[in-house]
Amino acid sequence: MKLSNQEKADILVQALPYIQRYNGEIIVVKFGGNAMTSEEQKLSTMRDLVLLAQVGIKVVLVHGGGPEIDNVLDKMHIETKRLNGLRVTDDEQMNVVQMVLAGKVNKDLVASIESVGGTALGLCGVDGGMIKATVMAPELGHVGEIVSVNAKPILDALNCGYIPVISTIAYDKSGNIYNINADTAASRIAGALKAHSLINMTATKGVLLDPKDENTLIPEIKIEEVDALKAKGVISGGMIPKVECCIEAINLGVKNVFIIDGRVPHAILVEVLSDEGIGTMFCKEA
Amino acid sequence: MKLSNQEKADILVQALPYIQRYNGEIIVVKFGGNAMTSEEQKLSTMRDLVLLAQVGIKVVLVHGGGPEIDNVLDKMHIETKRLNGLRVTDDEQMNVVQMVLAGKVNKDLVASIESVGGTALGLCGVDGGMIKATVMAPELGHVGEIVSVNAKPILDALNCGYIPVISTIAYDKSGNIYNINADTAASRIAGALKAHSLINMTATKGVLLDPKDENTLIPEIKIEEVDALKAKGVISGGMIPKVECCIEAINLGVKNVFIIDGRVPHAILVEVLSDEGIGTMFCKEA
Amino acid sequence: MKLSNQEKADILVQALPYIQRYNGEIIVVKFGGNAMTSEEQKLSTMRDLVLLAQVGIKVVLVHGGGPEIDNVLDKMHIETKRLNGLRVTDDEQMNVVQMVLAGKVNKDLVASIESVGGTALGLCGVDGGMIKATVMAPELGHVGEIVSVNAKPILDALNCGYIPVISTIAYDKSGNIYNINADTAASRIAGALKAHSLINMTATKGVLLDPKDENTLIPEIKIEEVDALKAKGVISGGMIPKVECCIEAINLGVKNVFIIDGRVPHAILVEVLSDEGIGTMFCKEA
Amino acid sequence: MKLSNQEKADILVQALPYIQRYNGEIIVVKFGGNAMTSEEQKLSTMRDLVLLAQVGIKVVLVHGGGPEIDNVLDKMHIETKRLNGLRVTDDEQMNVVQMVLAGKVNKDLVASIESVGGTALGLCGVDGGMIKATVMAPELGHVGEIVSVNAKPILDALNCGYIPVISTIAYDKSGNIYNINADTAASRIAGALKAHSLINMTATKGVLLDPKDENTLIPEIKIEEVDALKAKGVISGGMIPKVECCIEAINLGVKNVFIIDGRVPHAILVEVLSDEGIGTMFCKEA
Amino acid sequence: MKLSNQEKADILVQALPYIQRYNGEIIVVKFGGNAMTSEEQKLSTMRDLVLLAQVGIKVVLVHGGGPEIDNVLDKMHIETKRLNGLRVTDDEQMNVVQMVLAGKVNKDLVASIESVGGTALGLCGVDGGMIKATVMAPELGHVGEIVSVNAKPILDALNCGYIPVISTIAYDKSGNIYNINADTAASRIAGALKAHSLINMTATKGVLLDPKDENTLIPEIKIEEVDALKAKGVISGGMIPKVECCIEAINLGVKNVFIIDGRVPHAILVEVLSDEGIGTMFCKEA
Amino acid sequence: MKLSNQEKADILVQALPYIQRYNGEIIVVKFGGNAMTSEEQKLSTMRDLVLLAQVGIKVVLVHGGGPEIDNVLDKMHIETKRLNGLRVTDDEQMNVVQMVLAGKVNKDLVASIESVGGTALGLCGVDGGMIKATVMAPELGHVGEIVSVNAKPILDALNCGYIPVISTIAYDKSGNIYNINADTAASRIAGALKAHSLINMTATKGVLLDPKDENTLIPEIKIEEVDALKAKGVISGGMIPKVECCIEAINLGVKNVFIIDGRVPHAILVEVLSDEGIGTMFCKEA
Repeated sequence: MKLSNQEKADILVQALPYIQRYNGEIIVVKFGGNAMTSEEQKLSTMRDLVLLAQVGIKVVLVHGGGPEIDNVLDKMHIETKRLNGLRVTDDEQMNVVQMVLAGKVNKDLVASIESVGGTALGLCGVDGGMIKATVMAPELGHVGEIVSVNAKPILDALNCGYIPVISTIAYDKSGNIYNINADTAASRIAGALKAHSLINMTATKGVLLDPKDENTLIPEIKIEEVDALKAKGVISGGMIPKVECCIEAINLGVKNVFIIDGRVPHAILVEVLSDEGIGTMFCKEA
Repeated sequence: MKLSNQEKADILVQALPYIQRYNGEIIVVKFGGNAMTSEEQKLSTMRDLVLLAQVGIKVVLVHGGGPEIDNVLDKMHIETKRLNGLRVTDDEQMNVVQMVLAGKVNKDLVASIESVGGTALGLCGVDGGMIKATVMAPELGHVGEIVSVNAKPILDALNCGYIPVISTIAYDKSGNIYNINADTAASRIAGALKAHSLINMTATKGVLLDPKDENTLIPEIKIEEVDALKAKGVISGGMIPKVECCIEAINLGVKNVFIIDGRVPHAILVEVLSDEGIGTMFCKEA
Repeated sequence: MKLSNQEKADILVQALPYIQRYNGEIIVVKFGGNAMTSEEQKLSTMRDLVLLAQVGIKVVLVHGGGPEIDNVLDKMHIETKRLNGLRVTDDEQMNVVQMVLAGKVNKDLVASIESVGGTALGLCGVDGGMIKATVMAPELGHVGEIVSVNAKPILDALNCGYIPVISTIAYDKSGNIYNINADTAASRIAGALKAHSLINMTATKGVLLDPKDENTLIPEIKIEEVDALKAKGVISGGMIPKVECCIEAINLGVKNVFIIDGRVPHAILVEVLSDEGIGTMFCKEA
Repeated sequence: MKLSNQEKADILVQALPYIQRYNGEIIVVKFGGNAMTSEEQKLSTMRDLVLLAQVGIKVVLVHGGGPEIDNVLDKMHIETKRLNGLRVTDDEQMNVVQMVLAGKVNKDLVASIESVGGTALGLCGVDGGMIKATVMAPELGHVGEIVSVNAKPILDALNCGYIPVISTIAYDKSGNIYNINADTAASRIAGALKAHSLINMTATKGVLLDPKDENTLIPEIKIEEVDALKAKGVISGGMIPKVECCIEAINLGVKNVFIIDGRVPHAILVEVLSDEGIGTMFCKEA
Repeated sequence: MKLSNQEKADILVQALPYIQRYNGEIIVVKFGGNAMTSEEQKLSTMRDLVLLAQVGIKVVLVHGGGPEIDNVLDKMHIETKRLNGLRVTDDEQMNVVQMVLAGKVNKDLVASIESVGGTALGLCGVDGGMIKATVMAPELGHVGEIVSVNAKPILDALNCGYIPVISTIAYDKSGNIYNINADTAASRIAGALKAHSLINMTATKGVLLDPKDENTLIPEIKIEEVDALKAKGVISGGMIPKVECCIEAINLGVKNVFIIDGRVPHAILVEVLSDEGIGTMFCKEA
Repeated sequence: MKLSNQEKADILVQALPYIQRYNGEIIVVKFGGNAMTSEEQKLSTMRDLVLLAQVGIKVVLVHGGGPEIDNVLDKMHIETKRLNGLRVTDDEQMNVVQMVLAGKVNKDLVASIESVGGTALGLCGVDGGMIKATVMAPELGHVGEIVSVNAKPILDALNCGYIPVISTIAYDKSGNIYNINADTAASRIAGALKAHSLINMTATKGVLLDPKDENTLIPEIKIEEVDALKAKGVISGGMIPKVECCIEAINLGVKNVFIIDGRVPHAILVEVLSDEGIGTMFCKEA
């Protein structure tokens, strides 16, 4: 389909009311791991974020990186054990987690943002004393539980005009480093920032009434309904912790929380700059 | 033609490099009189300006209002004499000019901008000591020639987040009020603001090689070529003063000056946010 | 009477304690219509306001302009109907009201202030989204009732060093323009600004115990006494809405509200910079 | 002579153009010693300074205090020797000079300013590293010559809203304290502040053509004429160093320097806020 | 004992945690009179204060000066009467008190601070309207009781980068000057500044269990224990008013108040930058 | 050797003049690779830097990490080829370099700084568009040459109160990542920041007259002498590029450049806060 520039301009102008609605608000985007399916799609998402930043929205990017970590561990012939789905993280593995998240995934995202004309600052939870953590369970090694989030370094970066890109590595006062679940971290960060929205970009459509049928997307869930949906098995398996992070963010004061499909081109722009909801939105009963 | 939201988002993202190019720059738009053909088109243009302001461009709107003035003079049974195309402006006519420009056209434009979600401040050359003028020729009465332009009130308005909308009324130190040609004023204002661009929205395609054939648009004119074009009669009649204003702006340091067709929907967005030039651009030989 | 410069200096110094009392405070002055009896008296009042601004008081000028409106309506052979004293304002009349107030009276006041060395910004309720209004009564057309006052554009102007001059035109979100009673608007604006004082310059001495005897001025009225004064007929006729505006301002937190005689030279300076009260002051019972 | 408040207000308004001319400018006033003839006159002068500060002029007060020093030395039975008119200042005398100037005269002036509603900060050349000095001549003891003036503490005080009151005590890097001639210090301070004017309040009319005839005041002297006036004996004796300080200030960039009669009530207001010059003004040939 | 630079650096680094603990906090130091035993010790203390300021602590110095006052009174053959230990202060004596405190002791402390590389501003309670006082008892003359402390001039000095040095002279609105007890003033100033700590440098070890035995220092006293200690005679004589000032400061919100031995070299640094307490600390029961 | 707290305080005070000399200046410290001999020594150095930051010096840390990179390459069984001493860096190796430098070494340094009470921000040349580079030689792969250094992100971090910790990874506008020699980067960064000093912490004593005899340290080299020293073989081998970086920094306007022995405890504090020079200082002939 070939559009004239007039027609294109018309589409820009249609986005104006949506842009105005979010003007000056903070949106935290959780992205990474499975949602990062290709270099091209990553670049496309970064371009979306730079556009949001350019039109006056304060964008914060929080990322994970499970697949990249597995990849390097493989190359180093380090075997991973899991306990209840959590990586048992000894010192050597923690080193790899830290290197891959804070050194590779994080700075590659920063470079992508810069390459499409944005300016970003790649931080992790250690920078500026951002995320303090403690041991979750001794048998899990460096798997950490968040103790507190200090919003100052993120706000400093936003106020100086950067898109903060955050690896979810944390530390304790003895200098021990911890790996933090990125969904949990995104929720806590959104809460600490008093963000307007939290958008979890995943490799799923959202919450499905019938998990096998992508046409059964539930567009909106009141957090008061979650228990019933769990009981019915609608929210189950890997979706449970994701949904719990959404609830936590809302309880911390974030107005709207979304689980959207990161594989859909411009999913985040469609969610923010149109009336079309393309995933599941969580909110509180009025 | 029906586009999906993904396709629309893609169009937004295509505008990003253009937006970044103009980020933080001042663009002065001259609009009004004949270019203001309908209420709908006016609103559409205001929406374009608000979009430009929202994406980080500092927009200043300068307007004239000849037709509206004639209309009110008619209703008041005041006859207009012209000398060399200039309105002989006695005290009574000056009152009408001032009322219509600063009270009606100006505030209507402000209201239009506000109604599409922008914030504007309606000023004239008297406000904040902006435009000082003197008598152009005694026989023309209140027709004024600009003595100096004080950018402070315009910059104050921009820095406080408003789109300044400016009526080209000026005054002298004895308190006499003058009517100033809006094209001239726009050029002088753009120069005083060290604007990046000046866009004259007119009711013509631009400069045409054959004034009778709209397909002969000259897309770019170096100011060094203007004399030759005048000699050939390409630039003639009412186009001469318009082109001279363009040259003055460029000599005052404005980088790009455009004469575009205000009747084309979103003409200004197409000019600023795409590679398509839709009128005549004036610039200096490198 | 010829004074030496020493004697004049002594008089300046006597004003010092009064100046210090109001230092940094906001004073809203309502002026216009009948109080604006001559060009000379207007200029004298503007000079008074510039002096107040120069000595550290934040001056806001709100004006009406009934006589000027009537004058232009006459010239355009438009007849005015009134309902309960209010102008039935159809579209054509609203255009005239807007032109005269925002284009003529407003900018002339700005020019007067500039001509005595001050700097002013001529705004109306449409500028910066200042005054939102709604229809007062369908049969009155564009006569508006204030919904909300946004102090930001006025404070922006004050902080940038200008005397804001305000026409009491307002609008609603559909872009309809309304004519607002200037006394009411002044009260609401003073309240929104948390002004220290509101001074209504009128063509009367103030509230008179015997309306026919100018020697019976009541210098101070507690707002708790107003009902009794109305019952007695002391406050009656056109004075009733004026007094009600005063009460509204006080209820909105303005400390002192005055009705003073704008025809007396330097009335406002005498009121602010001496112990002599020259009109009626309204305040709350301690 | 009894004036009405209207008449008084009129006098205030007449001062407006003068106030506007000096708006935001720095005026250094040298006051003290013989010019400080009575408590009443001191208070009157302080009130003048507070008025100037209130109307937007940045006032700096530099003072001496010879008579007060002599008085305390007398009470302590310390004898003063003089060499070429300069006090031979040993350690004990320096202590007294410092105590009297920085502790008594300075803080009394501050208290006077506060008592008429101003806010002042009493500083000396030691505070904030303001005045560095060195020995003028070994035989004179603590009589100092200025090495440098640091404007920062004075500007800090002005920017925080205070009238700086300055004792002309200085020091060197070994911590030795020096007594500095107040006229010289005032000139150097005015130069360091890039002051608009320096006003020396003295106990004389100004420079007199015939020193014995007060009616022969020279209202204006170009600094190029000074040598000739010295040769003629018009400028002689104690007037010579005073005039040299005036010349130094002008050479340091101060526009206007005045020697005025501090005994005349409101002399400084008359000089600043009227067209009447009441002493001798020094300036450069155009 | 000769240390290598490495060993010295190690000692600097050991101070780091203490420095960080007080970073940005206000510490008020009361110093003077008997604690000022020698020029060398004064300079050493000033160097300590400049070090504290340099490492990020906001230091305020409040001083007295009884011995210096007595010394000058002696030289002037003025006899001092005392009533309940308080100097009966007539006009002449008040002049001396003011001169010595604000002119000599104060500016000498400022000069000392400057001579070791700091920057200080010497103020008294009259400057910037800092301390308002009233007559304590008519028979005591100019002995004053504090009515209010205005923290603004002190905070202005701190924010501009100066160490404020304060003489405890105060005044009332009639311009009368008062001598204020320096311990009381220091407590009130610390309270007005919401200081973290108040350190009283005295010529004693602190509070001793057996006043005759310096080895019986009480390192910490809860203010709730003071009455019992008075009853036992542990706190008695001249220590009573000192302790009462400490209690007042704590009641005004100062966290820690110390009485330390100003004769011990670097007493204040040891108190602030080590774990060793070298005097008596007052605090509230948790 | 056991010192009393008084003696320790005395040592702190001795550092004061050195602290004052560097107050507010920027010092760039190059650290890493071979100079980072033990965890304990790293922590000690970080504590030194935090102390410098705490006393008012703006500290920037630039690090390399050759040994850590080799270590991870080993574990991943990736072989390194070198050409003229430079690592031939293919895509896979570049990934490791980036991970180790920006993810491990960088964030570990940040964590160390935080663990001793400082606040740091871990950045690399990609963050905020800090270091733009280009291919040095096609056969070397991702070995980069610096094109430009943008000081803004470093200054932003300093102004927000952080110690910036910088990995010398760079990128070009196509998004290619480059490994930059850390010594070169430190010099260019120091130049871009207009730093006062650049301190290269190495695993050598400095420049030795006889490279085999550590007692032949040359304490100061004028850059004009370097050629002669190279000719004599005094500066040779691996010292040549290090010295060339020093010269570049000085040519870019850095006042003092040092090569010091990072293995000596508190080497940097001794260099900055004492008169003892412990390595080789480079400067320009006066």
